[in-house]
Amino acid sequence: MSNPQVGIIMGSQSDLPVMSEAAEILEELGIEVEVTIVSAHRTPHRMLEYAENAAARGLKVIVAGAGGAAHLPGMVASLTTLPVIGVPVKSRNSIDGWDSVLSILQMPGGIPVATVALDGAKNAGILAAEIIGAFVPEVSKKLADYKRSLKEKVLESAQTLETRGWKSNKIGF
Amino acid sequence: MSNPQVGIIMGSQSDLPVMSEAAEILEELGIEVEVTIVSAHRTPHRMLEYAENAAARGLKVIVAGAGGAAHLPGMVASLTTLPVIGVPVKSRNSIDGWDSVLSILQMPGGIPVATVALDGAKNAGILAAEIIGAFVPEVSKKLADYKRSLKEKVLESAQTLETRGWKSNKIGF
Amino acid sequence: MSNPQVGIIMGSQSDLPVMSEAAEILEELGIEVEVTIVSAHRTPHRMLEYAENAAARGLKVIVAGAGGAAHLPGMVASLTTLPVIGVPVKSRNSIDGWDSVLSILQMPGGIPVATVALDGAKNAGILAAEIIGAFVPEVSKKLADYKRSLKEKVLESAQTLETRGWKSNKIGF
Amino acid sequence: MSNPQVGIIMGSQSDLPVMSEAAEILEELGIEVEVTIVSAHRTPHRMLEYAENAAARGLKVIVAGAGGAAHLPGMVASLTTLPVIGVPVKSRNSIDGWDSVLSILQMPGGIPVATVALDGAKNAGILAAEIIGAFVPEVSKKLADYKRSLKEKVLESAQTLETRGWKSNKIGF
Amino acid sequence: MSNPQVGIIMGSQSDLPVMSEAAEILEELGIEVEVTIVSAHRTPHRMLEYAENAAARGLKVIVAGAGGAAHLPGMVASLTTLPVIGVPVKSRNSIDGWDSVLSILQMPGGIPVATVALDGAKNAGILAAEIIGAFVPEVSKKLADYKRSLKEKVLESAQTLETRGWKSNKIGF
Amino acid sequence: MSNPQVGIIMGSQSDLPVMSEAAEILEELGIEVEVTIVSAHRTPHRMLEYAENAAARGLKVIVAGAGGAAHLPGMVASLTTLPVIGVPVKSRNSIDGWDSVLSILQMPGGIPVATVALDGAKNAGILAAEIIGAFVPEVSKKLADYKRSLKEKVLESAQTLETRGWKSNKIGF
Amino acid sequence: MSNPQVGIIMGSQSDLPVMSEAAEILEELGIEVEVTIVSAHRTPHRMLEYAENAAARGLKVIVAGAGGAAHLPGMVASLTTLPVIGVPVKSRNSIDGWDSVLSILQMPGGIPVATVALDGAKNAGILAAEIIGAFVPEVSKKLADYKRSLKEKVLESAQTLETRGWKSNKIGF
Amino acid sequence: MSNPQVGIIMGSQSDLPVMSEAAEILEELGIEVEVTIVSAHRTPHRMLEYAENAAARGLKVIVAGAGGAAHLPGMVASLTTLPVIGVPVKSRNSIDGWDSVLSILQMPGGIPVATVALDGAKNAGILAAEIIGAFVPEVSKKLADYKRSLKEKVLESAQTLETRGWKSNKIGF
Repeated sequence: MSNPQVGIIMGSQSDLPVMSEAAEILEELGIEVEVTIVSAHRTPHRMLEYAENAAARGLKVIVAGAGGAAHLPGMVASLTTLPVIGVPVKSRNSIDGWDSVLSILQMPGGIPVATVALDGAKNAGILAAEIIGAFVPEVSKKLADYKRSLKEKVLESAQTLETRGWKSNKIGF
Repeated sequence: MSNPQVGIIMGSQSDLPVMSEAAEILEELGIEVEVTIVSAHRTPHRMLEYAENAAARGLKVIVAGAGGAAHLPGMVASLTTLPVIGVPVKSRNSIDGWDSVLSILQMPGGIPVATVALDGAKNAGILAAEIIGAFVPEVSKKLADYKRSLKEKVLESAQTLETRGWKSNKIGF
Repeated sequence: MSNPQVGIIMGSQSDLPVMSEAAEILEELGIEVEVTIVSAHRTPHRMLEYAENAAARGLKVIVAGAGGAAHLPGMVASLTTLPVIGVPVKSRNSIDGWDSVLSILQMPGGIPVATVALDGAKNAGILAAEIIGAFVPEVSKKLADYKRSLKEKVLESAQTLETRGWKSNKIGF
Repeated sequence: MSNPQVGIIMGSQSDLPVMSEAAEILEELGIEVEVTIVSAHRTPHRMLEYAENAAARGLKVIVAGAGGAAHLPGMVASLTTLPVIGVPVKSRNSIDGWDSVLSILQMPGGIPVATVALDGAKNAGILAAEIIGAFVPEVSKKLADYKRSLKEKVLESAQTLETRGWKSNKIGF
Repeated sequence: MSNPQVGIIMGSQSDLPVMSEAAEILEELGIEVEVTIVSAHRTPHRMLEYAENAAARGLKVIVAGAGGAAHLPGMVASLTTLPVIGVPVKSRNSIDGWDSVLSILQMPGGIPVATVALDGAKNAGILAAEIIGAFVPEVSKKLADYKRSLKEKVLESAQTLETRGWKSNKIGF
Repeated sequence: MSNPQVGIIMGSQSDLPVMSEAAEILEELGIEVEVTIVSAHRTPHRMLEYAENAAARGLKVIVAGAGGAAHLPGMVASLTTLPVIGVPVKSRNSIDGWDSVLSILQMPGGIPVATVALDGAKNAGILAAEIIGAFVPEVSKKLADYKRSLKEKVLESAQTLETRGWKSNKIGF
Repeated sequence: MSNPQVGIIMGSQSDLPVMSEAAEILEELGIEVEVTIVSAHRTPHRMLEYAENAAARGLKVIVAGAGGAAHLPGMVASLTTLPVIGVPVKSRNSIDGWDSVLSILQMPGGIPVATVALDGAKNAGILAAEIIGAFVPEVSKKLADYKRSLKEKVLESAQTLETRGWKSNKIGF
Repeated sequence: MSNPQVGIIMGSQSDLPVMSEAAEILEELGIEVEVTIVSAHRTPHRMLEYAENAAARGLKVIVAGAGGAAHLPGMVASLTTLPVIGVPVKSRNSIDGWDSVLSILQMPGGIPVATVALDGAKNAGILAAEIIGAFVPEVSKKLADYKRSLKEKVLESAQTLETRGWKSNKIGF
């Protein structure tokens, strides 16, 4: 990847199945990404370097996912002026995801993290695209197309349901 | 205000003391804002109109605050491709803020809301500035200055504490 | 269906296994229903149209189910004067259902949603029948019969348990 | 009151400040109410009698409020085929209202309670009116007027805010 | 069973696998029990009759288990002066058991329920025996024996673990 | 007090305002109590001695109150075969009382604690009386009188409310 | 302070009233402390420097307090091999302290933080002393004295309560 | 084991699969441990003896794990001046682990327990090593090596991910 605009980082390789959804949707929307592992607790210096150089390397948005006492998104946000999107990951020993959510969401005044839903990496990707789309019309256009496709899928499934009736459809589930 | 880049909306006038912190910090960072009241539940058509015209009117980011079963940020996000920042407000009858947080944060796939901390309107403002700053260098520079000022305030209070000792400082609290 | 009295809507086809329980019990109680998919976030205009025309089309009650940050029941309630029954669905990425429950239950003053238990679509159907039964004696009579059948099932299982003893019955579980 | 259509009951006199909001809004909407105290735990026989005779006495809806381990709404629902609206009251020793909410909301299959927000007696009143309004056009019309008045209040406060600017308005709060 | 001292009741046959643990331990401790199904919501009159006659029939303690919005223990407690032990059952649609726990535990002043742990029917049985044992020495003696056996099992497993070492024991788990 | 039947203990003098409600109601019901301070964490040996001698000293029930990580009720229960009633106290640094409730309620198999509501010392006293009343008819009779008085108070306040109307009564609150 | 063994740090001056309790008890136990402000989010480089040099400067334990999305204790723990004690502070916008607790407690494997109770700075100080006391007999002796004094205070208040009776003591509260 | 420095205890043999992780990492770090079963509720006298003799037997740290209403860590802490590390175990009937966490974490002033994450026995072992390492340089050195190995594993997996790309790596998960 020669010129990524969104950096997707995660605290551990085990977060990849969740976090790759951000990469997929961004690629679908025509935005170049880079994906790597940066651990706040195991590689704090790597985190510093990554966060402090991100803007100079041309990144426009950072998407950071982590679970449990999830410090990666907030610490990265403290080290850059780029917008940082945090994805709370429901990791193995998480207490139902509450720890991930609260330790990303409840940042102190001055250091925001744009938090999305638990395991919501896909929405993190879309949000990153919306941020870019606010300034790049072709991205904005692709987002509009994407939203239209969401609408059409709902309309189709509504029509199928109405045509076949709720009893037959229940079987098809 | 002739050319606002950030629209700050809230469900009720009673949210203004919280939400005005977003306006204050954005003004401090040199970004024009517009502030108004749009209720998802009491003025749904006004909400539609606001959200669907926001991009065309030149807004780059929408900051939406609401409490309780807070539907404003998510509904606005469904009606625009602009990034929407949601501020969960701890309103009077809220169950400790959990309702506001969860009904803004836990958006379904396809429709992200960039959620900040409970009553975190100031951070919503800074996040809006970071989004703009990713594409407008002078805003990015102001954010860097702002972060530096945060650091300096901590260093000053650290020095005061170390000089006077923790006992005297405790009194000054 | 020529003249449905209850409209059952849901945010996504994946809610159908839960929501069809409302249709089943209503049919059992002799009340005509219509069932379709209306997404607050993916088809906001369809939602508006559905909600604003519901009363004129002859519906007496709307049952709306959704999961996560569940805005459908509350938004529909804001667009009609019909009673709206909300079913919090425990969807895949829900935080144990708390998000669905709170974003349906905690509506602001002026816009009530009659909320039932998590995944409680059957009770939503019965509640819809009770609303109709308050004005239509034959429905009220069917509800009384239904309640009697619930009682009889308990009495039968009590008798079986008492006759066979708790040890044998435990096996039969 | 000679012919009440809505019975408003509560477990204790201390619930009256909350529960009287239901009576107020119903009176405002032209619906006759009766208001009394019925305790599930202190007067179980009175509760039985009240619930079992409610329909015969001409009531169309029962609004029941209680706090803590709140059994009144659910028990009344088990004894009538009328729709029962439950108001979780945040009483003195309640654990932040969670006990009231869950013991009213999470009813088993067969016995629904239409639950509204914590301390949401006003919405309980409006919901009762919506139930009646589904069958009585003049009530439905009053509800439409009420909704319009809510909208107009929002539009007015929006206009005031936009005219005076968010800074001056903040002071007036 | 000719002369039961403890009545064990539950809201539904599906509670039997949990509730039978109370019967088992009481039988083991030499106390006669009766076990049946009494539903607060489906058979309220049966519940009244059961609770109001319990003392006259010679019962000393009632153990009542229920899930979700669990009203059985509290309602029975309101209808008798016997001690009532409540077992919160984690039923299928329960929200992680919180609804069962809170709707049994948080009883208002005047009407206590002796609540045990979620699905803690065994402890409910032991507690019933302790209540009887406070007045019947042979029961108290059996409880002392039971406690000794618990201690001995711990000492044995401690010795096994210490002898074999924690590595081998881990395998045997 | 020469021959107390109920021992009321608490972890700290600061629990007395809550715990004295247990003593009051028991005295009102004609049952002798002893009240003292026993801390699981500060006086573990005193706790051992108290719990192990309680039955021999003639106590029939122990009521133990504590806050935060509340170990007193459970530890006492492990050291006696008497029934132990636990009162979760909402102490100063408690997390909304959840810590007190869960560390008393969720006892492991074999060692029950009869848990009452948060700050529910009055109900703990009544429960202790019910335990004694199951074997001592005059106590049972006093409990029946007490329940009757609760009922009469509700009936009186119902009558007052119905006579004066809910508007005037609201003022008198 | 010439040779501190415990470093007490906090994210903001507003944490001092809570955190100074750690300093007080440590001083009382004869252990030298240093107290300063280090913000993970506002002064990340200062945090790095502080944590990485702590052992070389002779510190044996670090006590770190923070509120909300509290990253200071965990980040410091990632940068030193010294034991780090984390104090969750219930700051102004915290959601009842849950965010502070979970973002300190739920650290991933490899990077422990010794977490104490919400606002439990005093216990953090005692824990630091216990760590030192495990290797320094005179500290261990002082801790034994301290524990004895806690016991004596309980015994005294127990005696006062028993002598005066619970009624008089209640007044003295 | 001739001279263990860390005592690892647990309330039940069923906690061994979790708790043995503490023994494993301590052995890996060259620290001798002893592992046994001590139940606060089933063997309170054994617990007393264990805790009161621990320091004299040469232990420097106690690691105690328990689930549900977990009293072992706090009770042991009340009986020794050694540092006690508490591991909340998510046992079978635990309410999502909240009971274990809160009954270990929320200790009253004077009696700290160093709490680690839910099921965080590995971190308990590392924390014990850090406590010893603060006074024993070779342990501190081993911890530094361990931390380095954690970092290297992250760097390796980052490199693998970057080389192969996030798509291929996703498959390998």
